[in-house]
Amino acid sequence: MTQRNGHLHLGAFLYPTGHHIAAWRHPHASADAGSSFAHYVQLAQAAEAAKFDLIFLADGSGTRGDDAQFLSRTAHSYVAQFEPITLLSALAAITRRIGLVGTASTSFNEPYHIARKFASLDHISGGRAGWNLVTSSSEHEARNFGFDEHLAHATRYERADEFADVVSGLWDSFDEDAFLRDKSSGRYFDPDKRHVLDHRGAFFNVRGPLNVARSPQGHPVTVQAGSSEAGKELAARTAEVIFTAQQTLDDAVAFYADVKGRMARHGRHPDSLKIMPGVMPIVGRTEAEARAKFDELQALIDPVVGLAMVSMLTGGFDLSAYPLDGPIPELPETNASKSRQTLMIELARRENLTIRELYRRIAGARGHWQLVGTPAQIADALEERFVHYGADGFNVMPALLPDSLNDFIELVLPELRRRGRFRSEYEGRTLRDHLGLARPASRYASREDGKFAVPCAAHAA
Amino acid sequence: MTQRNGHLHLGAFLYPTGHHIAAWRHPHASADAGSSFAHYVQLAQAAEAAKFDLIFLADGSGTRGDDAQFLSRTAHSYVAQFEPITLLSALAAITRRIGLVGTASTSFNEPYHIARKFASLDHISGGRAGWNLVTSSSEHEARNFGFDEHLAHATRYERADEFADVVSGLWDSFDEDAFLRDKSSGRYFDPDKRHVLDHRGAFFNVRGPLNVARSPQGHPVTVQAGSSEAGKELAARTAEVIFTAQQTLDDAVAFYADVKGRMARHGRHPDSLKIMPGVMPIVGRTEAEARAKFDELQALIDPVVGLAMVSMLTGGFDLSAYPLDGPIPELPETNASKSRQTLMIELARRENLTIRELYRRIAGARGHWQLVGTPAQIADALEERFVHYGADGFNVMPALLPDSLNDFIELVLPELRRRGRFRSEYEGRTLRDHLGLARPASRYASREDGKFAVPCAAHAA
Repeated sequence: MTQRNGHLHLGAFLYPTGHHIAAWRHPHASADAGSSFAHYVQLAQAAEAAKFDLIFLADGSGTRGDDAQFLSRTAHSYVAQFEPITLLSALAAITRRIGLVGTASTSFNEPYHIARKFASLDHISGGRAGWNLVTSSSEHEARNFGFDEHLAHATRYERADEFADVVSGLWDSFDEDAFLRDKSSGRYFDPDKRHVLDHRGAFFNVRGPLNVARSPQGHPVTVQAGSSEAGKELAARTAEVIFTAQQTLDDAVAFYADVKGRMARHGRHPDSLKIMPGVMPIVGRTEAEARAKFDELQALIDPVVGLAMVSMLTGGFDLSAYPLDGPIPELPETNASKSRQTLMIELARRENLTIRELYRRIAGARGHWQLVGTPAQIADALEERFVHYGADGFNVMPALLPDSLNDFIELVLPELRRRGRFRSEYEGRTLRDHLGLARPASRYASREDGKFAVPCAAHAA
Repeated sequence: MTQRNGHLHLGAFLYPTGHHIAAWRHPHASADAGSSFAHYVQLAQAAEAAKFDLIFLADGSGTRGDDAQFLSRTAHSYVAQFEPITLLSALAAITRRIGLVGTASTSFNEPYHIARKFASLDHISGGRAGWNLVTSSSEHEARNFGFDEHLAHATRYERADEFADVVSGLWDSFDEDAFLRDKSSGRYFDPDKRHVLDHRGAFFNVRGPLNVARSPQGHPVTVQAGSSEAGKELAARTAEVIFTAQQTLDDAVAFYADVKGRMARHGRHPDSLKIMPGVMPIVGRTEAEARAKFDELQALIDPVVGLAMVSMLTGGFDLSAYPLDGPIPELPETNASKSRQTLMIELARRENLTIRELYRRIAGARGHWQLVGTPAQIADALEERFVHYGADGFNVMPALLPDSLNDFIELVLPELRRRGRFRSEYEGRTLRDHLGLARPASRYASREDGKFAVPCAAHAA
């Protein structure tokens, strides 16, 4: 392997019963996990004891999809679970060191609310908050906020760009040393160190200042997930962590080089952004044990759910009249995402998959990188991506919770530690410390201050 | 005293360093309380150990006011403190029984987000969440959300009315027994027990359903604070707790009768709404000790802050050129709230107050009922309001935190308990249990079910 020193960064991407679509049906699953706080306490404390950089929560402001037959047979698609900001805030109180990253969409929120909630979470947690900035592409979410369809892709990203800028400006409302709290003179803060943003833009007019003191990390860590052209540009300009889906080493290396290559134009050093693809590892002491665990989950996939997922990915084509163990029929061209449809059909043709085999192939990890093997095999695969600059770390997506998280902690982490690839103790206290990210300067800091070297580009080297 | 049996309901209204405008300057105050989670943990656990019904957090989505000289000398006016939903969620994790009521405005929020966050908090806390529904009258908040001035009063209340209706509908998205979670059949929920709201109104189009299961209390408890005509009507129709400000027994009794009298028209029993006025008790073992505590706080009021408060209440008239210990000058008529201005001037004239005396009179409790005395005197005053049907309980506003809360717990609560007016143990587990509020029926429940007697009016007797 090529030389690349250092530790992987690891996130624990929590999802009620686990990321596998059928996880809730497993005998070990708590089927009510989506509204069991005790379940999340157990997961967060286990991830913290294992020294993960962060826990990660996805989000959707609405159920994804309308197909009642499909939805009623899955615990996925945001049918019914905790809202991430409330859940992370509660978990902040029962953890001490692990980072807390929550998703919130720029499409149906107001930047003042988002800036305020994540700054508040950063204070509550002593500097462990991260915001995963996403745009919403689901009309099911849009309809909960007065829109009949979702915003066009370009508009979503223009809005996201301005949203991120407003949030970052609001986080700079108070200088680090604005609060004097001098009881004898009666001066609570220095008005010269409090800044009115007065933003007027295409999407938002936001006066500010934010009514939260500058937060322990300066700014909560900004995470992004977009892999489109607009998404990569936004990430290169503003993200500090990217959560992405890459199936192959080649794709991962190309994506990594692409995004990091864009950063110089924005005055940023590549190390100020950590790329952490999602991975669903299913680990056993032997290959056979790993395979058996995987097969057990796969066998639980309800054909209704599997067919609905294939149908969604092929633009709505109904396969329910065809035999499950027969070949995929000719699919008509639809206006669904061409790349996804092509990918699916090519996969099925190339490997001669039956309908059941196809849905089993895609339903498990839902498009993410899936690894089934021994601790050494999984560590090899992760390390390979890391040393070839395909990843700075991984967002671990346990298939079944808590089992798969515990397996990863008990089997894979010791292997990664033996190889010098993962920490045994936290060295710092904040999420920025864990990720090796610099504290951002305030946009109001001037070079003359001598305190902040760079006025606007927070992460320039 | 007239006969009225039963316990008072008590809220602990937490405010960073306490409600007295000068509390942060007191030697016992933690001047950084607004961003000290440890401070709030201590307060919440003390209130829970004392068996308060609930803790209560106010809110403003922006700093109140523009006067930098005033603001920079006060820890009030939402200059910089935790956001309530994040803070309450965190406190949920370190408490077990006490209710958690947070304020969120209907003026600059979306009902889907509010319904979701409070339902999520209700799940996290095992049924202890309450939402204090307010409208925002501050243009300083409006400007953080794209408006140049705040909404007109009538529009605010029309919006609030529709907002409350949408939130309540979203909370009914899933029936109590919608989740089957039947691993063997693969049925996660019963689609017939999940309801699409499909709300289309003047202010909001919200399709639903909410992506949170029906919460432990059915609905989080709805609290309101409005005392205007529109506010009282909204409360009579939808509120379960009212937080109000009443200075005199007569005013309190009149307000109580007025609001409760409106409820029958909405098919509600008066007991399904608890009226809990704010009170700032300053208690000492002797009258002299109580007075000394109060005087100590009063002496800390910065003249700049005191004058600014008088100026705000008299419509912006600048008194800084007049001697502090001289009389109030003739004030010109302004377009400020006439009733407040009249009240202030009448008070000053009637009692021959100097400028300093006037600001000391109003700056402490900021318009709320203020009691300075021994435990017996304070218990007498509270009990008098209770037995005369001026209150069902009180939202206790500690002047200085944690001292005034601890004084109330150590001195007043034992006196109230001796009189049989306050619980020694929690009897139930939820906020509804503590307040004696029935669990609301779902709007989708039919009489034929036999499970819910009343289809739409949740609290009818």
